[in-house]
Amino acid sequence: MSFIVSPQTLQFDAPLPLQSGASIRGYSLTYETYGQLNAARDNAVLVCHALNASHHVAGTHEGQPRSEGWWDNMIGPGKPVDTNRFFVIGVNNLGSCFGSTGPMHTNPDTGRVYGADFPVVTVEDWVNAQARLLDALGIQQLAAVMGGSLGGMQALSWALQYPDRMRHAVVVASAPNLSAENIAFNEVARRAIVTDPDFHGGNFYDHGVVPKRGLRIARMVGHITYLSDDVMNEKFGRQLRDAVAENVNGYRFSTQDVEFQIESYLRHQGDKFSDYFDANTYLLITRALDYFDPARAFGGDLTQALARATAKFLLVSFTTDWRFSPARSREIVKALLENDRDVSYAEIDAPHGHDAFLLEDSRYLNLVRSYFDSMLRAPDKGQTPKTHETQATGVHS
Amino acid sequence: MSFIVSPQTLQFDAPLPLQSGASIRGYSLTYETYGQLNAARDNAVLVCHALNASHHVAGTHEGQPRSEGWWDNMIGPGKPVDTNRFFVIGVNNLGSCFGSTGPMHTNPDTGRVYGADFPVVTVEDWVNAQARLLDALGIQQLAAVMGGSLGGMQALSWALQYPDRMRHAVVVASAPNLSAENIAFNEVARRAIVTDPDFHGGNFYDHGVVPKRGLRIARMVGHITYLSDDVMNEKFGRQLRDAVAENVNGYRFSTQDVEFQIESYLRHQGDKFSDYFDANTYLLITRALDYFDPARAFGGDLTQALARATAKFLLVSFTTDWRFSPARSREIVKALLENDRDVSYAEIDAPHGHDAFLLEDSRYLNLVRSYFDSMLRAPDKGQTPKTHETQATGVHS
Repeated sequence: MSFIVSPQTLQFDAPLPLQSGASIRGYSLTYETYGQLNAARDNAVLVCHALNASHHVAGTHEGQPRSEGWWDNMIGPGKPVDTNRFFVIGVNNLGSCFGSTGPMHTNPDTGRVYGADFPVVTVEDWVNAQARLLDALGIQQLAAVMGGSLGGMQALSWALQYPDRMRHAVVVASAPNLSAENIAFNEVARRAIVTDPDFHGGNFYDHGVVPKRGLRIARMVGHITYLSDDVMNEKFGRQLRDAVAENVNGYRFSTQDVEFQIESYLRHQGDKFSDYFDANTYLLITRALDYFDPARAFGGDLTQALARATAKFLLVSFTTDWRFSPARSREIVKALLENDRDVSYAEIDAPHGHDAFLLEDSRYLNLVRSYFDSMLRAPDKGQTPKTHETQATGVHS
Repeated sequence: MSFIVSPQTLQFDAPLPLQSGASIRGYSLTYETYGQLNAARDNAVLVCHALNASHHVAGTHEGQPRSEGWWDNMIGPGKPVDTNRFFVIGVNNLGSCFGSTGPMHTNPDTGRVYGADFPVVTVEDWVNAQARLLDALGIQQLAAVMGGSLGGMQALSWALQYPDRMRHAVVVASAPNLSAENIAFNEVARRAIVTDPDFHGGNFYDHGVVPKRGLRIARMVGHITYLSDDVMNEKFGRQLRDAVAENVNGYRFSTQDVEFQIESYLRHQGDKFSDYFDANTYLLITRALDYFDPARAFGGDLTQALARATAKFLLVSFTTDWRFSPARSREIVKALLENDRDVSYAEIDAPHGHDAFLLEDSRYLNLVRSYFDSMLRAPDKGQTPKTHETQATGVHS
């Protein structure tokens, strides 16, 4: 059913100046594209990834039938973002660990592996790197930039950094910045990694080890914040993994063995993650999340910050998402409306928490489908309808 | 202003059978008492502690003016639980690390430090141990058992295990069991401790080390769940610790240094905790939390489970407590009312999250004061008023 895709890599020699004041040169970006760029070169959609995802957004890799991309239910032939009509680009961000230059690669200035010396990158830096990739692909203006969570922050930042290079921003399950609690959870994860003796100050590659203990804890704590309390209770509740019939309540009475199903699930998630994710990347990406805050330069005034945006917006949030709650999306909606921008907003009544943005939900998928369909029906390149708002609790599509 | 108190210790030679099937013998309990037991020996109030607290509930220790007990705003002369009228007992639970027998003590059966071999104890076991202490103190029936959080679970369990030995149960910011999410957070904390190389399978005492890395992470993650999102945003928000004037947004651009105030606060909490708390105790007490579930033996039917309780109840919850939300207290209220029990319930509109049960809040403190005052006005030993409910959002006292 799925289509076969192949990653590609582009090398960039010119130094990319970063927000920190540092720069990075001789880096490469790994990306995938789906569908065909049309003659007008105006049907491209850039999809930005969140913390642990990659350029592999949709389709499967040759000979790996179970290797569907992370947004395969959203993007592909006949899907809500229809690759029969749109040319979709997924790109692995700088500092990540799925192909693009990251901490495990060699710093051309020193000839050594970056490790902890990989420069700190921000959402704004990623957007600049993505814009250079589009230059190389000969795409001047995107039909849309879209993403969920941290990916949504990139879509929002695109609208501020390159207002002329895009017509639509699709920002799903995102926020205008992290709350103190969001930062706090990131910090727990980072401390778990950094204080793992196998981290070696970030230079663990030299020691032939991986700070797996820290990565496991980081993933476990992250995973809790991706799920709603309700869905956890429904999926796992207080179920035991192996009840001991002869004991009170079936308990094993152990502090270290797995007792409850939820423990087994979280340990499994942690183990899997520690096998493939890079510890330095985890630090970099959580920091990019912490730092994103377009209103900061405007004394916290998000309305002023978003005045630069000219794209039309679709924002989507999910009722049970307590990581980036609907209230956070509404802050963005409000600031855009105060700037008289064209905004559609839907609050989807879904039980799955933050993870809902990756899951099957016909109301959500149909909403995105309608939005992309309408782009083609009225190819509005800046001139069209008056500002309007579709603010709904639940979606009436 | 505070009064001077001294801990005492009682040794128990007879084995205490535990829910796990094991037993513990030759153990001691450390406790404090405030006020005077009256001639009728019927004015005693047992105060049960939560995860990281102890027998030191109120007052200060000689020569340590800043050593106020953890519930000093609630208990003492002229306080809501007035020690001029009530005889209050605080007891450190078995397995804890503040005086009573715990994992750092010697197992009389082996002559070795218990370490990881300390038997798994449950809320029910603690209640049984507390009942033995009351036997030794010559107290047949308590005026009340009270506690917050895990302490509230003990008060509830008392009402089920020893219905004839108490007249009132005061259950604050508690729950009839842990949700999957609650267990998940406990499991993250336990994994952080157990996978710390300095844990040595729980026998770190022999190695002269302490698994401080794990304890720090455990405390950080716990601390996040004690606070509300709102109070974190108000106290810390996105404030930087030391803004760097010449950098974009004042950021230091570091993945490992403290950048935000919330990080500094959490690291400090973690450091403090790792200096005084025992790692094995943390495992034991979080497991006691996980295991508490009086409805489990009744197929999940809390109403049936609470049928044994005959005490009058005061339940209190706090609107912003997302660890043990008001909905969890309401489950207990509902089950008690279905058993036609005498229940008062107040939902306090407080911004502080779970921690609210330890903080100054005049509505909350006055409510508890009124409840204890009413005990003395109408010395109701089982015969008095009809079942009633005071269910309030906010307290109108």
